[in-house]
Amino acid sequence: MKCKICKEKAIIKLKRHNIKLCKEHFNDFFLKQVDRAIKEYKMFKKEDKIMVCVSGGKDSLVLWYVLKKLGYNSVGMYINLGISEYSENSKKKVIEFAKRFDLQYKIVDLVELGYPIPKVAKESRRAECSVCGIIKRYYFNKVAFDEGFDVVATGHNLDDEASRLLGNILHWNEEYLKKQLPVLPAEGNMLKKKVKPLIRLTEKEIASYAFLNRIDYIIDECPLSEGATSLVYKDALNLIEENIVGTKQFFYFQYVKKLLKEIKQSQSEKRYLKKCKICGMESFHDICSFCRLVKDEKQ
Amino acid sequence: MKCKICKEKAIIKLKRHNIKLCKEHFNDFFLKQVDRAIKEYKMFKKEDKIMVCVSGGKDSLVLWYVLKKLGYNSVGMYINLGISEYSENSKKKVIEFAKRFDLQYKIVDLVELGYPIPKVAKESRRAECSVCGIIKRYYFNKVAFDEGFDVVATGHNLDDEASRLLGNILHWNEEYLKKQLPVLPAEGNMLKKKVKPLIRLTEKEIASYAFLNRIDYIIDECPLSEGATSLVYKDALNLIEENIVGTKQFFYFQYVKKLLKEIKQSQSEKRYLKKCKICGMESFHDICSFCRLVKDEKQ
Repeated sequence: MKCKICKEKAIIKLKRHNIKLCKEHFNDFFLKQVDRAIKEYKMFKKEDKIMVCVSGGKDSLVLWYVLKKLGYNSVGMYINLGISEYSENSKKKVIEFAKRFDLQYKIVDLVELGYPIPKVAKESRRAECSVCGIIKRYYFNKVAFDEGFDVVATGHNLDDEASRLLGNILHWNEEYLKKQLPVLPAEGNMLKKKVKPLIRLTEKEIASYAFLNRIDYIIDECPLSEGATSLVYKDALNLIEENIVGTKQFFYFQYVKKLLKEIKQSQSEKRYLKKCKICGMESFHDICSFCRLVKDEKQ
Repeated sequence: MKCKICKEKAIIKLKRHNIKLCKEHFNDFFLKQVDRAIKEYKMFKKEDKIMVCVSGGKDSLVLWYVLKKLGYNSVGMYINLGISEYSENSKKKVIEFAKRFDLQYKIVDLVELGYPIPKVAKESRRAECSVCGIIKRYYFNKVAFDEGFDVVATGHNLDDEASRLLGNILHWNEEYLKKQLPVLPAEGNMLKKKVKPLIRLTEKEIASYAFLNRIDYIIDECPLSEGATSLVYKDALNLIEENIVGTKQFFYFQYVKKLLKEIKQSQSEKRYLKKCKICGMESFHDICSFCRLVKDEKQ
């Protein structure tokens, strides 16, 4: 197996691109894919202040690392979710990683704030993953606003987005389907632009990149996510991809193309952004989802 | 395991309906599902002359059997595709079945007509499954027109249609997506209405019904269909269905609902039907797909 570019020994085969690459040229390829996504979807520019949401997992740490390599101005943002050992271990990974590569970071501690996920889930009688999503989105927006970031970047990859798209299509979740894009524009002043720079890369490619560049991440999945339906959609898509190479990529990017076209056509309708009556953050509701979750119920 | 209705011993568990049934009540359930599909989508009435496309496989033989049970006026239509032993065996099954249940049938013999699938595929340099689809659709339409049938019924089931829908969505085949309905209306005078009365039933349910009612069908798949991508989509959907019961059904029928709504909204645009310049059958092209396939090339 030889590298397509330099003919040295290849270490990876990328079926959907029909190429084999050595370590050096795989690293090049990887950076180019991130760079291409950033530019193609106008995610951010060199002068922007980027908040990278880091969990300690492979995707977010690789994203943080790559943004530094590409010369972007990024700060890591870690939320301690208060999920026992898993949170302790992932926090350790993030701090070690930041020190090793001399990266800036911020920590929001849900335990100190009184909102650890298991507690809020129990009190609100909602699924943990749903509660976790609401609280994370809230603090990502809040910190980005408070600290003057221009954009919030997450480590979502092609597998994440294609499988989420599949799940949303199988259940025809029209509201979610309208939002499945590599870039979500800012809304108002407080809800910052959200971007997914790893969108052109698969989970396997990211894991390979982390391994080759000795990025030490937390391998355990969140213990609360066991049996998550998202994994079923990933398995199903991988089964199809094995037989019909390129399906995942075509499925997702063609959808994005169609959706962007639709949005352009209906750009006239704008949603009306309000200020949350409890905390003052911008929201599309009178009381934002976060306050409805943790504050409203107690009143 | 007890039957939900009579509390006798159940022989089947229908997860997506959350019921267990004995033989008698499963047979009832099965007929009701077919009856419901026929009425819900206005497929045909008691006075209509129905052509049932029969291949000798479980779906088409079960459909033929059930239509008779429900008191409809149907005639089987078998096409000898000229695919060696497979065609010989399936023809035998169809004839035996017709005799056993005293059913009328017609046979179109592609070998006699000079169009056996392998030969046409070779000469036109097209995939066998694609050639087979064109030729079958042509003769189903032609015989239905020549013999004055009102409607053409095929044995497509929920798995067939949901997996085809999945494949078409993953590759965003917009043209095919517009046609994925349990009923396709007649167009012009020669292209008859097409209906799928088994649309509410899964492959497993149909196989169980065939087994319980001693319907002897050809079990072998067509030897030319080996490695067909449709099987990959079926496997992927089954994987999801096992974990998230009801997905297949919701996915397909919700799509049908959305599509029917869209069609109603854009009913004004109609396509213009012409007569094929070679054979005179109605078509949306100057020369119909069949003649382009088998006749045009020889000129």
